[in-house]
Amino acid sequence: MSTENPTASRECQNTADADSVGLVTPRKQEFTEPLQLACGRVLQGYTLVYETYGTLNTDRSNAILICHALSGHHHAAGRHSPDDKRAGWWDHYIGPGKPIDTSKFFVVSLNNLGGCHGSTGPVSINPTTGKPWGPDFPPMRVRDWVHSQARLADLLGIEQWAAVIGGSLGGMQAMRWALEYPERLRHCVVIASAMKLSAQNIAFNETARQAITSDPDFCGGRYLEREKLPRRGLAVARMIGHITYLSDDGLANKFGRELRTGSFQPGSDEEVEFQIQSYLRYQGDSFSSSFDPNTYILMTRALDYFDLAREYKDDPVAAFANASCRFLLVAFTSDWRFAPDRSREIVNALMHANVSVSYAEIESAMGHDAFLLPNERYEGIFRAYMQRVAAEIIEEGRYAY
Amino acid sequence: MSTENPTASRECQNTADADSVGLVTPRKQEFTEPLQLACGRVLQGYTLVYETYGTLNTDRSNAILICHALSGHHHAAGRHSPDDKRAGWWDHYIGPGKPIDTSKFFVVSLNNLGGCHGSTGPVSINPTTGKPWGPDFPPMRVRDWVHSQARLADLLGIEQWAAVIGGSLGGMQAMRWALEYPERLRHCVVIASAMKLSAQNIAFNETARQAITSDPDFCGGRYLEREKLPRRGLAVARMIGHITYLSDDGLANKFGRELRTGSFQPGSDEEVEFQIQSYLRYQGDSFSSSFDPNTYILMTRALDYFDLAREYKDDPVAAFANASCRFLLVAFTSDWRFAPDRSREIVNALMHANVSVSYAEIESAMGHDAFLLPNERYEGIFRAYMQRVAAEIIEEGRYAY
Repeated sequence: MSTENPTASRECQNTADADSVGLVTPRKQEFTEPLQLACGRVLQGYTLVYETYGTLNTDRSNAILICHALSGHHHAAGRHSPDDKRAGWWDHYIGPGKPIDTSKFFVVSLNNLGGCHGSTGPVSINPTTGKPWGPDFPPMRVRDWVHSQARLADLLGIEQWAAVIGGSLGGMQAMRWALEYPERLRHCVVIASAMKLSAQNIAFNETARQAITSDPDFCGGRYLEREKLPRRGLAVARMIGHITYLSDDGLANKFGRELRTGSFQPGSDEEVEFQIQSYLRYQGDSFSSSFDPNTYILMTRALDYFDLAREYKDDPVAAFANASCRFLLVAFTSDWRFAPDRSREIVNALMHANVSVSYAEIESAMGHDAFLLPNERYEGIFRAYMQRVAAEIIEEGRYAY
Repeated sequence: MSTENPTASRECQNTADADSVGLVTPRKQEFTEPLQLACGRVLQGYTLVYETYGTLNTDRSNAILICHALSGHHHAAGRHSPDDKRAGWWDHYIGPGKPIDTSKFFVVSLNNLGGCHGSTGPVSINPTTGKPWGPDFPPMRVRDWVHSQARLADLLGIEQWAAVIGGSLGGMQAMRWALEYPERLRHCVVIASAMKLSAQNIAFNETARQAITSDPDFCGGRYLEREKLPRRGLAVARMIGHITYLSDDGLANKFGRELRTGSFQPGSDEEVEFQIQSYLRYQGDSFSSSFDPNTYILMTRALDYFDLAREYKDDPVAAFANASCRFLLVAFTSDWRFAPDRSREIVNALMHANVSVSYAEIESAMGHDAFLLPNERYEGIFRAYMQRVAAEIIEEGRYAY
């Protein structure tokens, strides 16, 4: 984590990377002004880690904020080093000529408070104790993230975002932006999200949390102090999440009932194992060595707690009456955790509140994860919408390259 | 476990229990002839625990076999003592005047091999070691249960069942009966079942098994020898199962986003907890003190392994060509683990194989669990079908009360 990498612009020119943002270097920003949290507690100071892609125009009118989901982070596009095997988590949609076109937009992507990728969170040192925050880190709500993101915008000199964009939990942040700071965004892009979780969604999250907290190595959340890590619990939690972010058809297409080992012939001495079993275990294990269990708990709670219209007497039309930006909503047919019905509820509320909204329901077998994956129609609609956002900037004479 | 309880018939006459089978006493049956298992291993001897309701007619033509599901057992109807708080798991559907009418039928319900309610299974003593079988108990396949059930039928003098009936994993046993012993059943009732699990179903089962086996108290399955019990893992496994056996709408109707403790007001010092969270934890905890973890693993594996048409070159029509009984299939609209589509596949295969089949798709918000719960239309269709089964017995002059 440092200031700009002098090699970044050179790497960017690689022809193989023509549509990539190239090499990127995360930046760290300290905030010393206390942050009042929704739970009533106050965070005295904190750090946010973020990346930017593209160039801010002189009018500061082409900035896009990317809000990440449950297990996401600031590294949304490009690579951290030339031999980095994996690009950022939304690299397919952010880059020169991509839907979020970095030749037109200045894109900001941060790791949220409570995260485990460099921003202040449960793995950070609690200044009052000198030990990791662990389970004492305050619970986060979506609005806390929005408030901390607004401070980052202030610091970057961005008075108004051209768009705030997020999928899933990120979409909840985008919607909250539209209600908390209606004048500070022109467009709100909400992908595969919901106004609130269903009881079933909360139930899956609770089961994942139980898997983590019932692992004896969880130590009441103080595993770092005790030099332990509840890997097994976190792996099971991730397996639960992973299944529910995919669709039945998607899993059937990818794995079916293919065997990895063993056979159903009598006397076969190898244990029968289906491909899907080893795939899931691999997913669980690799996640559990790269993500913080307390952060996973915190993020799932933020999801559970989010309820867009709670303080508007449960009336989403009243909630959206405050919004003055325009909306793009996207949902995927096979997404059963954040089903198209949940997006349609948002669309209906926006229409009744006389807010401009476009809605696309994308045919996909990939479940909730579809929002991260290549899909021609999704890409086309997303690109067309963002091109209009970019065109507005030019029309308003504020495009200043 | 003993022979008949002399008070049973008296208790049965209680007017409050007019439609109950009343007090029942499980019986134990030892089998000394070795049982060849599908995995290639041999079980030298074993015990089956079973209950019966109603009276076998002199023709022995009115017998019904009930096959239980994942966490079921032999106690399907009535009560074990007058102060027994809960009746058997299918009491709503078995009793005098109920769909499985014990004034007409002689009903047999057993605990399957590998179970943990009295039949030989992982908690039983392995005669070769003198210790509990634990993880060394042979893996069970549905056909092993069917073979052991056939031996119980032999012993009871039942050459042909009037019907073999089961829901979920029990439905798989009923279908296997129709292929393994086509002459030994006249009707096959398959409720909320499937010809094989999908990758998603296997994935949920695998995650449940991982929750159990990754609990340090699992001790590689030898927890009984070490005087441990992987309660936490089994509780998480049950929570996973429980969510998936209910529907999204069912959970929404029952719990919504109601809070049990705490509030979203700033400064509330109680942690926010939704009703669904405590409900699920209660379900997990109570299950984990009454069920054996190795049995849970064994039962979920039997589910995963079942593939009706595997040895018929994956052609279910060829598989059902062997069946000579008539079928009733039932599915529930909100059941997403064993969805109506899975039942329709069975119906289609039966029709193409020229086997007689009736099919009912029941409107219900209760998910997979609907097969256990009161539902007027389900009950009506089930009753009507079983009345025809009973009428046949009379028509054929074999009804001998």
